[in-house]
Amino acid sequence: MTRPSAVPPPVTAVLDASSRWLPARLGEVEDLLREQAAGYGELLGTEVATTLAAGGKRLRPLLVLLCAGAEGGEGAVRAAAAIELVHMATLVHDDVLDDAPLRRGLPTIAASSGRARATAVGDLLFARAFALLGEHGGARAVALLAAASVSLADGELAQRQDAFETSISEQRYLDRCRLKTATLFECACLLGHDLPALGGFGAQIGLAFQLLDDVLDVSGPVERTGKARGTDLLDGTVTLPLIVAAATDPSIAQADLRALDAAAAERLCDRIAATGALDRVRSRALELVAAAKAELAGDAFDPEQRQLLGLVADGVVQRYS
Amino acid sequence: MTRPSAVPPPVTAVLDASSRWLPARLGEVEDLLREQAAGYGELLGTEVATTLAAGGKRLRPLLVLLCAGAEGGEGAVRAAAAIELVHMATLVHDDVLDDAPLRRGLPTIAASSGRARATAVGDLLFARAFALLGEHGGARAVALLAAASVSLADGELAQRQDAFETSISEQRYLDRCRLKTATLFECACLLGHDLPALGGFGAQIGLAFQLLDDVLDVSGPVERTGKARGTDLLDGTVTLPLIVAAATDPSIAQADLRALDAAAAERLCDRIAATGALDRVRSRALELVAAAKAELAGDAFDPEQRQLLGLVADGVVQRYS
Repeated sequence: MTRPSAVPPPVTAVLDASSRWLPARLGEVEDLLREQAAGYGELLGTEVATTLAAGGKRLRPLLVLLCAGAEGGEGAVRAAAAIELVHMATLVHDDVLDDAPLRRGLPTIAASSGRARATAVGDLLFARAFALLGEHGGARAVALLAAASVSLADGELAQRQDAFETSISEQRYLDRCRLKTATLFECACLLGHDLPALGGFGAQIGLAFQLLDDVLDVSGPVERTGKARGTDLLDGTVTLPLIVAAATDPSIAQADLRALDAAAAERLCDRIAATGALDRVRSRALELVAAAKAELAGDAFDPEQRQLLGLVADGVVQRYS
Repeated sequence: MTRPSAVPPPVTAVLDASSRWLPARLGEVEDLLREQAAGYGELLGTEVATTLAAGGKRLRPLLVLLCAGAEGGEGAVRAAAAIELVHMATLVHDDVLDDAPLRRGLPTIAASSGRARATAVGDLLFARAFALLGEHGGARAVALLAAASVSLADGELAQRQDAFETSISEQRYLDRCRLKTATLFECACLLGHDLPALGGFGAQIGLAFQLLDDVLDVSGPVERTGKARGTDLLDGTVTLPLIVAAATDPSIAQADLRALDAAAAERLCDRIAATGALDRVRSRALELVAAAKAELAGDAFDPEQRQLLGLVADGVVQRYS
């Protein structure tokens, strides 16, 4: 049982603070994820390994394990691997939809093996997730992950529907973030331990995560994000920084996103940043993280669990500070 | 509860021969499928309705219901709808992969709404299937459908890997058919009633179905199939008719499928047909159907169930006669 080779900073902080059970359990999740790629030949093995490396934060599995606690056992490990597989399937399909060349600096499967294989690889990862979860019973777990998966696809559809529409409302944006991101974080927590407070914790840090991710797309720099500034804008995805900026500078909402090239997208990012919108969105995210932590104030949580989940919440913010 | 509007011939024969429970149960499956499309706005409703219409045979739900029998109840209806959703998800994604303009004479979602939406719609249908099945418990059902879904994606990957390879072995082709088609038929039967004989029945008629489908791609005519003759060849998909034909006329294996246009594909179809390969593959399919029926000889099956499943098996063949 080894610690994953490239453990990202928020996870490192949690591992350092945790008792020995957590690193061991995370290692089991890695082993289980690797097993899912086995038996399909070298090409698929490479593709899945690339995807594994690209989706490297393991935040969702970490949430499952922490919410389940030290007594979580095999069921928590399976649920943690299953939710990461669904997340990975989504990344692979998103890259197909966006014709994305890179993810975190590595070529996407869509780019290296073509859209066709990437679609099938995504389907395979998705099916594997349910196979893993269904194998040993957990009907409630299957229902939770299936509902979250419906939500992911629904969010993706909503995003496509809103594409290039600079006048979408903040509410519509937030609804989309819940569907695309927050629900899977919420699901991770509930898969660990089915308590409303944990669901609320997960949903709020998930939303904060998405808000900060959208700030990062505007702020860059590319060395950190592995993708050009304004990539969302070039894809026609309107996010909160633009919506908030347009309230100060209405001319921003007049931008024709379909006509953008990379240089024009960078200039639009600069105009958004000039309104102070990025700080305002960051503040909103920090409020969400504080509210998430407040969910853990009850007696249901032991001090270690509260501390470690708090570190994950802080890690979401730190990643972007 | 109404009978589906456009009931295809094999299903009609079964409905005519069955007691009243079957049409009522199939109507419930249709209602449940329609519900899955509700609540996502008009566009998605239309897309799912189109997909529902295009995948119109309902063979897999029929197998679930018949294997479950008159006492199957709500669980059988949910399983029948879930397996059809997985089948539909696969069709939608296959059309994305193949850039297919038409399916059974209707525009595909990929063609009418673009690849991006089609990928997300497929994901949504897939997730909905597991949501439906997981909702009320059935852990064994989830495990069966998840395993079949893994198999579908694995089959799709194998097919992509073999693309344009005219020298693949018959065994490789049959393995692929099992992954891509037979396993889902087997799963349908087992979801209805978890008996090895029923699984064997499903797997064999599924394989026969695929063999005959592959004959149809070579034989046409287009009025019947809704797609041009040799579509598989143009996609680089080598099937049993070509493999069998090449044993008689080795020059057929020399064909460069990458260089085919529509007219050349039709000519290659004619050369395959001229070897008598189509009749040989049809005979193989008929043997499989006979073997499938033989699975039902045991005492476990009441006469109505044996008769109706026999009609489905015959329907698979009739569709192509």
